[in-house]
Amino acid sequence: MKLKAKPLKLFAGRSIAILHKETAEKLQLHEDSRIRIKKIGEKRWVTAVIDIAEEMVKKDEIALSNDITKIIKIKRKDWVEVAVELRPYSINYINKKMQGKRLNFTEIYSIISDIAKDRLKEGEIAYFISALYFRGCDMKEIYDLTRAMINTGAVLKHKEKYVLDLHSCGGVAGNRTSPIVVSLVASAIQHLGIDAIMPKTSSRAITSAAGTADVMECVAKIVFSTAELRKILDKTKACLVWNSALNLSPADDKILKVESLLPIDTEPKLLASVISKKVADGATHLLVEIPYGNSSKFKLAEAIRLKKKFLKLTSKFGIKTKTILTDGSQPVGRGVGPVLEMLDVISVLKNKKEKLSDLENRSLLFASELLALTKEISKKDALDLCKFLLYSGRAYKKFREIVLAQGGKTNFEEKLRTGKFRKEIKAKKEGTIKAIDNKKVSLIARIAGCPGDKGAGIWLHKKRGDSVQANDVLFTIFSESKEKLDYAYRIAQQSNPFEIE
Amino acid sequence: MKLKAKPLKLFAGRSIAILHKETAEKLQLHEDSRIRIKKIGEKRWVTAVIDIAEEMVKKDEIALSNDITKIIKIKRKDWVEVAVELRPYSINYINKKMQGKRLNFTEIYSIISDIAKDRLKEGEIAYFISALYFRGCDMKEIYDLTRAMINTGAVLKHKEKYVLDLHSCGGVAGNRTSPIVVSLVASAIQHLGIDAIMPKTSSRAITSAAGTADVMECVAKIVFSTAELRKILDKTKACLVWNSALNLSPADDKILKVESLLPIDTEPKLLASVISKKVADGATHLLVEIPYGNSSKFKLAEAIRLKKKFLKLTSKFGIKTKTILTDGSQPVGRGVGPVLEMLDVISVLKNKKEKLSDLENRSLLFASELLALTKEISKKDALDLCKFLLYSGRAYKKFREIVLAQGGKTNFEEKLRTGKFRKEIKAKKEGTIKAIDNKKVSLIARIAGCPGDKGAGIWLHKKRGDSVQANDVLFTIFSESKEKLDYAYRIAQQSNPFEIE
Repeated sequence: MKLKAKPLKLFAGRSIAILHKETAEKLQLHEDSRIRIKKIGEKRWVTAVIDIAEEMVKKDEIALSNDITKIIKIKRKDWVEVAVELRPYSINYINKKMQGKRLNFTEIYSIISDIAKDRLKEGEIAYFISALYFRGCDMKEIYDLTRAMINTGAVLKHKEKYVLDLHSCGGVAGNRTSPIVVSLVASAIQHLGIDAIMPKTSSRAITSAAGTADVMECVAKIVFSTAELRKILDKTKACLVWNSALNLSPADDKILKVESLLPIDTEPKLLASVISKKVADGATHLLVEIPYGNSSKFKLAEAIRLKKKFLKLTSKFGIKTKTILTDGSQPVGRGVGPVLEMLDVISVLKNKKEKLSDLENRSLLFASELLALTKEISKKDALDLCKFLLYSGRAYKKFREIVLAQGGKTNFEEKLRTGKFRKEIKAKKEGTIKAIDNKKVSLIARIAGCPGDKGAGIWLHKKRGDSVQANDVLFTIFSESKEKLDYAYRIAQQSNPFEIE
Repeated sequence: MKLKAKPLKLFAGRSIAILHKETAEKLQLHEDSRIRIKKIGEKRWVTAVIDIAEEMVKKDEIALSNDITKIIKIKRKDWVEVAVELRPYSINYINKKMQGKRLNFTEIYSIISDIAKDRLKEGEIAYFISALYFRGCDMKEIYDLTRAMINTGAVLKHKEKYVLDLHSCGGVAGNRTSPIVVSLVASAIQHLGIDAIMPKTSSRAITSAAGTADVMECVAKIVFSTAELRKILDKTKACLVWNSALNLSPADDKILKVESLLPIDTEPKLLASVISKKVADGATHLLVEIPYGNSSKFKLAEAIRLKKKFLKLTSKFGIKTKTILTDGSQPVGRGVGPVLEMLDVISVLKNKKEKLSDLENRSLLFASELLALTKEISKKDALDLCKFLLYSGRAYKKFREIVLAQGGKTNFEEKLRTGKFRKEIKAKKEGTIKAIDNKKVSLIARIAGCPGDKGAGIWLHKKRGDSVQANDVLFTIFSESKEKLDYAYRIAQQSNPFEIE
């Protein structure tokens, strides 16, 4: 059926098309049905879920949400072709996996391709994630999942000999090493004159209070085309951008969004997600951090198992990989939340004396290990070089360069604002801080508004091993809304992340 | 924040509110965020997911989908209060169950109440269903789940001594006994002059091609208020209506909708679903059919286990229950799909000679067992009475009475139309029909358009034990759309439900 397009500046978080009731009846469509849409004369179909209206649209019209019009360029009154989207057959493969059966590449590709094309609904994707969570995958399935994710998105090619990359498996609040590592590595690359870049592409938060993309967005743009990215890399040898905008492994992003509802993380998906993104962004040398410990995602045994799988999989894709297991038993740094973590990053880069040695040491370690992976420099020399670059202010200068190349303002530091609503949580007794629970910290920060509200989050006044008196402030909760603050405060009181002994 | 309402005749399958971009920013809301809305001066809050628009709505306006305006009566320019809906805490209980921990009543109630009030998203409900599917529940949890479902909806009270009810656990294509059993029981009630009614409330299809509600909707209305229902019962002693419209166990309906995506069925949910609906519709005496066998939902051992759980649970709620295990190894009757099943029902009631003995015998058995459960008549006498009522045309007369009382037209039989697009599937070799797979039959019928497209479905020309020659027609697929028919035909060829030996 041919209909006149009515592009709406409507943002629904999914592709929505609105049809007149009679038009929907003619097509035998019900609310929540799926349709396919393409511009007349063009080839690309997009899938959308329909809403049905009695007003708003005429019988020969179809209103389209922004998610659709950004994919197929459409102007008002352009004619579009509309067809019934059949029930995606991949749903049967999701069901097969739910029942505990192995999937082959064709079946996995069918699911991933339908997710990438928005043909599966949130609930169907949640079932797929649950099936992976409860049934697990063997190495062949994980490899196939990774390949399917790569093949359904864009793949970047770089001219440099070394394309350095970093990934942290997460689960540790405030662990924002990437901006520091990238600044260190990029200035080292220039210092050593090696043919390398570090085009770091990152995600937004999944289960945590902030992802590197959320944090960088506080000071610079993170959305760039491939051509724009190349210009930034030519200028600075590095970048810190949002991977979603580059359409690398787009299915992964859509799965992450549904995972973030609970939140939930599954090992097969974690491996496929990371490696597909790294293959797609062109990495040749990769450092993977796997934090382990109480209240982090992994216990030591799991971290060791994961490490082996990482090495096995990356070698299949020809990426030289080093994995580092780190102590993930308490948050890193002081700030948790986009703005608060950026403040930590700047403190380290500017060598401020704020007891951020954990964040600093990790960043130095990762940067030097990554540089040494190229064999152009020894580990020891790389560590010394990174220390020099950090303490001499060169790394900070490189960071500013990257921020400005990514469209940040010269006074970006002054623009950082923490949430104006805040409350302190105090110690009920004296003693020593025995533990700080990452999951509880992240939950409270998310309830306070993270990662969507940039200024929301938590500032840790105390860390493990510190002594406290009764009534000493343990942490401050920041929020941009009074309601969210109150709720976060209530949860923080019910379930305090600090354990004092 | 106070905003002017703009009710839209928009049907989205969920509660949607559309806010202007700047208004959303002021409230720190992002697309897909949850808000609460109430009419100024009234108490009832409803939850909605937001879309964000740059046109369509003004900054002081909020556009509301039909799902909202039908709950809180709202006219254009009524003022409404809008507040941020915090992340429902029940999500943490879903996560707890995902991790394999037991939930107590408060936790289960919190999840079910949030589902009933539309506070959880499709993906979150899918995770809850997955958690029940993979982790299971003990009897206490199932009892709590049932109570929570009852307590979050309406409960009907009837004046009669016996409120008779029937439930089939499903999984068998074409097993449409309810309209026949209700007609038999209602005419027996009048014949015997006992103080009883059979107010049958049914669901729409979950995993199958049609539910009793979908089938009845082909000839009568199925949506009634409690008061209207009472009038129908006074007139005919029975009804066949849609349970959702009566707000019985509303959370159950919302869970079913998400289950139907895959489709998936879980035992704890199945038990709670059936029993909560039966307690809420006021049943005192209940017959439960549990079909078992290859390609049905349950194997014999599972059916026996389920039977015990049914009896245990219904006794806690004071419902006198009889469970019958039936042969579920092939479809019942000939038609599969709303109109096609109604044609079978009418054939049995009108004593047509169409080899529908399986549908007829089951219906006679269920009706007589249910009547005998009251102890007002023996099993043998009840069976003889039912046969008399069926063969004398009295049951058919009763069925017509019910259809007319429910707003059906006197010529309802002539109005039944099967899908105009159809294709036959033929035998590839001669032999005897060894099996007909229920799941494959249902899948093909659903792909052909069931249950939404009433005329879609399958007509079985052959049943198990029949001899066929090569090229004999095994079944016909009906559809209301050529595209859906082609797709169903392709699947039918790939995965034929008939096994010939």
